[in-house]
Amino acid sequence: MLTLYLTPDTCALASAIALEDAGLAYRIARIDFARNEQRAPAFLHVNPKGRVPALVTERGVITETPAILAYIAQLRPAAGLAPLDDPFAFAELQAFNSYLCSTVHVAHSHRMRGYRWAREPASFEDMQRKVPESVGEGFHLVETGMLRGPWVMGERYSIADPYLFTLAQWLEADGVDTARLPRVLDHRARMRKRASVIAALSRERPP
Amino acid sequence: MLTLYLTPDTCALASAIALEDAGLAYRIARIDFARNEQRAPAFLHVNPKGRVPALVTERGVITETPAILAYIAQLRPAAGLAPLDDPFAFAELQAFNSYLCSTVHVAHSHRMRGYRWAREPASFEDMQRKVPESVGEGFHLVETGMLRGPWVMGERYSIADPYLFTLAQWLEADGVDTARLPRVLDHRARMRKRASVIAALSRERPP
Repeated sequence: MLTLYLTPDTCALASAIALEDAGLAYRIARIDFARNEQRAPAFLHVNPKGRVPALVTERGVITETPAILAYIAQLRPAAGLAPLDDPFAFAELQAFNSYLCSTVHVAHSHRMRGYRWAREPASFEDMQRKVPESVGEGFHLVETGMLRGPWVMGERYSIADPYLFTLAQWLEADGVDTARLPRVLDHRARMRKRASVIAALSRERPP
Repeated sequence: MLTLYLTPDTCALASAIALEDAGLAYRIARIDFARNEQRAPAFLHVNPKGRVPALVTERGVITETPAILAYIAQLRPAAGLAPLDDPFAFAELQAFNSYLCSTVHVAHSHRMRGYRWAREPASFEDMQRKVPESVGEGFHLVETGMLRGPWVMGERYSIADPYLFTLAQWLEADGVDTARLPRVLDHRARMRKRASVIAALSRERPP
């Protein structure tokens, strides 16, 4: 069976939702950042990067959200979570997820993880002050073009939807002006009603 | 025909090498950062993100290096640039490329593009001082585990190789201690001898 290493309120939620969407059985292994478990030898053995998510399969471990999401779509083609028979459409989907990963999530990370890229408290505070703008710019592009509607890639729900939903959960905490993002908010509200999202949100918390 | 928007000395080189590896015909459209062409309306029409690379196809534009690389591999399966028939191996490959994109390249970007995440000159200087360590940590993981040898994914050359090569070109300028990275340097030296790399490096410069 698949095992998803996750921490609540992180981007690992996207993979959990996709697993639910695909109808794949999976166990959850929680990593507690407050106890620094992501740096513990036991977890570094699973993922030397010390990050979540990590998906343990019979053949080995897959890390990085865009890779995990595409893998889930390929594991269960019948779920229709990616246009696997259309390289161009698949590339568009991958471009969306890569943008969330390398630009939008990275902008967000400067609010609480500035130590990855600087050392001075004054720098961390400067980074934090910029987050509403940098995350907001990323979501502005999503709002005004990348989110086709009703789902990210258009008429068909895909692995891009749980990923966008997951990052959109952080908008208010990041101080982004959500009044400029009505389509993103509408997408988020519709996602919250999906059985897969309800199940994943419920399962990521300790019982 | 495909058109690759690129700027010399950026990560767009990886896509150019992969196009050469695949034997696909392509035109190059150069974007001059010194003249701020990446923010010009003509280019924002191609890629609203204002970034390179962007690959223009008959069906539309693909952006983001991991997405472009996988697309190139899918366009020319006979070139064997990705394990397209093995979802697990493909996911491992994607995880590698996603790591380069969202962690290693992002660490590098803090040397010259700190304005994306902060506003104060003192923050930019603090970020610059950390780059040798943050980029070095990323490459240390590549050196000690992710780079299987002789190629990134093992015996078979893949789209991960031009991407690693491209980012490894920046090691010295980023101040990374390359003495700790003998396997990465060996990979880089072998890549430089490949006809595809020689061709892409030659073509990215204005004639």
